Amino acid sequence: MRLTELDTPCVVIDEDKVEANLAGFQRHCDTLGVALRPHIKTHKLPELARRQLELGAKGITCQKIGEAEVFAAAGFDDILITFNIVGPAKLERLAALAARVERLCVVADSATVVEGLAGCFDRPERPLGVMVECDTGAGRCGVQSAEAALELARRIEAAPGLRFAGLMTYPKAFNEAQVQAWFSRAQALFDQAGIAIPTFSSGGTPSMWKLAEAPIVTEYRIGTYAYQDRSQVAAGACRLDDCALAVMTTVVSCPTPDRVVVDAGSKALTSDLLGLEGYGCVLGHPEARVVGLSEEHGTLDFSACAERPAVGDLLSIVPNHACPVSNLFDQVHFHRAGLLTRSLPVAARGKVG
Amino acid sequence: MRLTELDTPCVVIDEDKVEANLAGFQRHCDTLGVALRPHIKTHKLPELARRQLELGAKGITCQKIGEAEVFAAAGFDDILITFNIVGPAKLERLAALAARVERLCVVADSATVVEGLAGCFDRPERPLGVMVECDTGAGRCGVQSAEAALELARRIEAAPGLRFAGLMTYPKAFNEAQVQAWFSRAQALFDQAGIAIPTFSSGGTPSMWKLAEAPIVTEYRIGTYAYQDRSQVAAGACRLDDCALAVMTTVVSCPTPDRVVVDAGSKALTSDLLGLEGYGCVLGHPEARVVGLSEEHGTLDFSACAERPAVGDLLSIVPNHACPVSNLFDQVHFHRAGLLTRSLPVAARGKVG
Repeated sequence: MRLTELDTPCVVIDEDKVEANLAGFQRHCDTLGVALRPHIKTHKLPELARRQLELGAKGITCQKIGEAEVFAAAGFDDILITFNIVGPAKLERLAALAARVERLCVVADSATVVEGLAGCFDRPERPLGVMVECDTGAGRCGVQSAEAALELARRIEAAPGLRFAGLMTYPKAFNEAQVQAWFSRAQALFDQAGIAIPTFSSGGTPSMWKLAEAPIVTEYRIGTYAYQDRSQVAAGACRLDDCALAVMTTVVSCPTPDRVVVDAGSKALTSDLLGLEGYGCVLGHPEARVVGLSEEHGTLDFSACAERPAVGDLLSIVPNHACPVSNLFDQVHFHRAGLLTRSLPVAARGKVG
Repeated sequence: MRLTELDTPCVVIDEDKVEANLAGFQRHCDTLGVALRPHIKTHKLPELARRQLELGAKGITCQKIGEAEVFAAAGFDDILITFNIVGPAKLERLAALAARVERLCVVADSATVVEGLAGCFDRPERPLGVMVECDTGAGRCGVQSAEAALELARRIEAAPGLRFAGLMTYPKAFNEAQVQAWFSRAQALFDQAGIAIPTFSSGGTPSMWKLAEAPIVTEYRIGTYAYQDRSQVAAGACRLDDCALAVMTTVVSCPTPDRVVVDAGSKALTSDLLGLEGYGCVLGHPEARVVGLSEEHGTLDFSACAERPAVGDLLSIVPNHACPVSNLFDQVHFHRAGLLTRSLPVAARGKVG
């Protein structure tokens, strides 16, 4: 079946580009001796995560328990959840998950989070791994100093059912020097205290090729590299031709000579700008601009283009941000040279909790 | 059950506020003698659309065939799809839908769209209603002149299986004078040509209370008025207290005295800014600002607030735009004074095609 027979809007993914993206960065990690723990938030597909493991990934990263539950049900047994687990409902789900997943690890950045975990996990023979999340410059979660990291590691170690599993950061992009400095300070402090740091975990696709600039890092977590997207092209992490995912859409209106309206709006492409101008890149029409999105309409400006599409034509748009696009579709379609290879349900779509 | 027992992030909707929003605007339309045809894109719930019909709505509006299919299956028999239906796959679905829905109507803004419909619908005894979409200033779809509208109406009337059902516009907000002028010009032209315009359809929540300023309008289509949201407060369409929908979220981190991180990110609140600063309004903390969203984290700035929440606290955030939030959740929870009244699956979620 040809992709052009699919109903639109739909997500189409190039098999060869995904494979090249996955294999290429795994090779890079292998060369550097860094463990790769890909983030499944981008594809949300057990099938692709399995391929990542086959290629050499150590395990997977999930952001929410709901995602981890889907992957545990699919047989994954080495999962890191990089999110503070808070509240009785979540802790109960985490306990159930830990009973099914051989190697489960979470993070914590406050005594409150550690206390919650400690109150729920009390089996010294099978402790829950807990990493301390560190804010190395991104300004999101994480302890603010190496001293605070040490204090939290001590609290984790003091809890019989928990095990200190290392330091984790979601770094600011192109911030490798600060990650190196932050983690090095922590290492010196932990060394003095006689506490080993089993893992230094970092990662983010924009500066993925700068990984070697923070040599203290032993584990790298990235997601977007699987599909790549327009924001990663802008960041220099890939070329447009490496982008494996596109939204295929139909031209439904050409109300003026310059304006083209397609059936993909923010419900297909998301409103994510990520600092870019416009909402995507129209393949084959580099001068076209995706100037506006409402929920179901995308408005394109073709004023700078020599060729104009007509109503009924298909266009493929590389989104600014691939990950939330996966989250908007119940299924995605893989292809090789325009021929459908497989359609997969997005198993971990919509798992916000 | 109390709302506070729900797992987060989740969508909570105040029953009394929804009812007041629906009843209040229906009364307004009744007073003006304008038919109300609410857009279900906001709630995507047959249960709420049924209430809208009970209160006096004429029928419903859907944006995509996929939404109309869900509502047809739920028994709705008067549906307007305000979207150009293009391509064989969509036309086939439309034909199947027309066989099930007593009063089905679509729009067209080009000869190509009319030709597609005419080739698919050929039963004069049960013609498909087709409205001509007019661009009265919003710059999205629609014919650009009254002359073009007339020409298209003639094409529709010339097709045995189609019936010209009127003029439809999705207007620029606060553009009532231009809608009135545009439709009036068309009326004069159609009068000369001896073609009746059965319906003048307009609508948009931001300027809903200005409806009377375009007295030519006979049918009004709005969606967001059901829940209201932060963008509608900014537009003056409602007060913050009228906003029925909020995202309930848990504080998972307070890494600095001013920074609060919650478990609702763009996968719960969307990245829609709609011209506003920040991604939502934190109820009970008017000085708090939702300064950043990643997919699963919301970063709040509490520097201007006297009281700071702690890890584990629940916060409710009114989103900038309620409609795409409905689209991100598999279910929503209704309540009265904080007590759960019902949880409903979002039946038409994810229907992008």
